[in-house]
Amino acid sequence: MSAPSGAGKTTLCRNLRQQADFIYAVSCTTRTPRPGEIVGEDYYFLSEEEFQARIEDDEFLEYAEVHGRKYGTLKATVFEHLKKGVDVLLDIDTQGAAAIRSCRDPFILDALVDVFIMPPNIEELRHRLLRRGSDSEEQIAVRLKNAQREMLRWKEYKYTILSGSMEEDIAKFRSVMRAEHYLSRRLSLDLA
Amino acid sequence: MSAPSGAGKTTLCRNLRQQADFIYAVSCTTRTPRPGEIVGEDYYFLSEEEFQARIEDDEFLEYAEVHGRKYGTLKATVFEHLKKGVDVLLDIDTQGAAAIRSCRDPFILDALVDVFIMPPNIEELRHRLLRRGSDSEEQIAVRLKNAQREMLRWKEYKYTILSGSMEEDIAKFRSVMRAEHYLSRRLSLDLA
Repeated sequence: MSAPSGAGKTTLCRNLRQQADFIYAVSCTTRTPRPGEIVGEDYYFLSEEEFQARIEDDEFLEYAEVHGRKYGTLKATVFEHLKKGVDVLLDIDTQGAAAIRSCRDPFILDALVDVFIMPPNIEELRHRLLRRGSDSEEQIAVRLKNAQREMLRWKEYKYTILSGSMEEDIAKFRSVMRAEHYLSRRLSLDLA
Repeated sequence: MSAPSGAGKTTLCRNLRQQADFIYAVSCTTRTPRPGEIVGEDYYFLSEEEFQARIEDDEFLEYAEVHGRKYGTLKATVFEHLKKGVDVLLDIDTQGAAAIRSCRDPFILDALVDVFIMPPNIEELRHRLLRRGSDSEEQIAVRLKNAQREMLRWKEYKYTILSGSMEEDIAKFRSVMRAEHYLSRRLSLDLA
């Protein structure tokens, strides 16, 4: 799942995680924790050096730099669950999603379902970021500029959900998750 | 939507029709009405001659012969609603679905979402047909044979739903209908 900063992605993911039918892939970041964030639940917080070492050991499924900080998903986190047949939810930016789309692992590509959450408009995004109160005016300006650039990439995703209320977004996202399970190409039936 | 005889397709369609977000395409048939069926709601009942005349006038989107009776969907029924942006549900057999899949109308092909309802097993089908009580033993044998032949064609469909309870089948089918609306290729967004 990708969504521009402030589109409510974090809250959406938090709500989805409480529903037990998939696993949230906790990602790694070099940014500093925000108040209330829980280590190993929201993120694994790594130093620049630790992150760099894992890049060199080819441990990331994808990683990207956003707002000057590194973010990445470890292969181990994703494979562990997919191999058990459990869906894995990634909260990922457009760069990260593009990296996964261009990976060559047929196992990953087959499991991939990319969903873009499109926020109502830039004004609404600005309000949400202001309400959150964790960014300076300068940081908000950078986030909005990045958000606008990200919003142009919705067509790269198989699905695009126009964000409404949190309840609507959850219902829409879950419909996509369910429907993908009914694709005939994902089924193997023995009718003999 | 296709499903072998007795998979509960008619009841499923009837339930879905009560939910107002799409239109059921009433099809034409040359078979005789069963007790309780309503003309223009369950089927349009046509004579062999009337049906044949409409075939000759190229009025059918698809038609097929099943158990010695003709069934078909009029183009007018489907186009009328699709052009208004309303989803249209077709209760159709595997022959009919194949006919639509191979039509050359890009408007139809773009709108097409084919879903196969897979009944639990042949024994359960036999029980359901017996319970329905509208067929002779000979007719049931024919229906079961056809059902088995149809069940082998599930892979032709984009989606296959393994039939559970009626409520589960409805929820699954509606997830598919919703998710298809969120496909990026179906959206046109103006972000300027």
